[in-house]
Amino acid sequence: MSSDVLHAIQDCYPDDFSWCYGCGRLNELGHQFRTGWNGDQTVTIYTPKAEHTAIPGFVYGGLIASLIDCHGTGSASLALHRKNGHEPGDGEEAPRFVTASLQVNFQKPTPQGQPLKAMGTIEEIHPKKFAIHVEVFSGDVCCATGKVVAAKMPESFGQST
Amino acid sequence: MSSDVLHAIQDCYPDDFSWCYGCGRLNELGHQFRTGWNGDQTVTIYTPKAEHTAIPGFVYGGLIASLIDCHGTGSASLALHRKNGHEPGDGEEAPRFVTASLQVNFQKPTPQGQPLKAMGTIEEIHPKKFAIHVEVFSGDVCCATGKVVAAKMPESFGQST
Repeated sequence: MSSDVLHAIQDCYPDDFSWCYGCGRLNELGHQFRTGWNGDQTVTIYTPKAEHTAIPGFVYGGLIASLIDCHGTGSASLALHRKNGHEPGDGEEAPRFVTASLQVNFQKPTPQGQPLKAMGTIEEIHPKKFAIHVEVFSGDVCCATGKVVAAKMPESFGQST
Repeated sequence: MSSDVLHAIQDCYPDDFSWCYGCGRLNELGHQFRTGWNGDQTVTIYTPKAEHTAIPGFVYGGLIASLIDCHGTGSASLALHRKNGHEPGDGEEAPRFVTASLQVNFQKPTPQGQPLKAMGTIEEIHPKKFAIHVEVFSGDVCCATGKVVAAKMPESFGQST
């Protein structure tokens, strides 16, 4: 379970968009990542489960990629929501973003059994598109960096496939 | 569960390196991806579970990133194993790789309920380092592309952290 983010943007997604395995509050089998503001940066905190192993003692890269991915879309939603005059907790529904691209650089083996903290710095690259530069920390050690490009989910998402 | 790959490189990893949540054959809670040769390309086939949702009906990006990640390390292991004169199924242990970097470009919403097929093209960039160019298909549709840079796991992996 995630923790330590009181007002998460994921609490503001409409119910129909709250089933993401990474960050959907209604997906009870998922990670339920929670992303909020920390000053002008964004933060998501998550403690991987025992089964999220790469080799015993270290966290699986796919979990770190997932954390960066959802942290990115959540951060983009936070940014547009604030631009629209809203903050998580004020009762307004937040816009939902999808990931256009995801880049992860694994810097160091990431120890299991400790919370991971993803920190995001947001760059607006288009009125409906944001780049989020992410660092993932275990304690004070940056174990991975990444970049997410997230675009506002189109109304037509999935209808043409 | 994965399927359709008879001789998978993951069957050749030493037991101590077979606990990966993505591709470890001993991790019963994980995806147990299986990666093998398909001519000069590599293939991993996996059908996401019902809970691996992005929005209902579509697959979670983090699962696709995880598939590309483990498909990349598995492909690199296949490549070095073949270079060393071995093929999965011949009883020889295979070298284990770690991911240095992972890039994913999400091209189209990926429908749930169908197998995903990751196809890899391997590029040797150093005797112990490979780049794997990956396409992920749902049926005939390429839903995501990616690139993994995988390096042979150092003997000292994790000892200095």
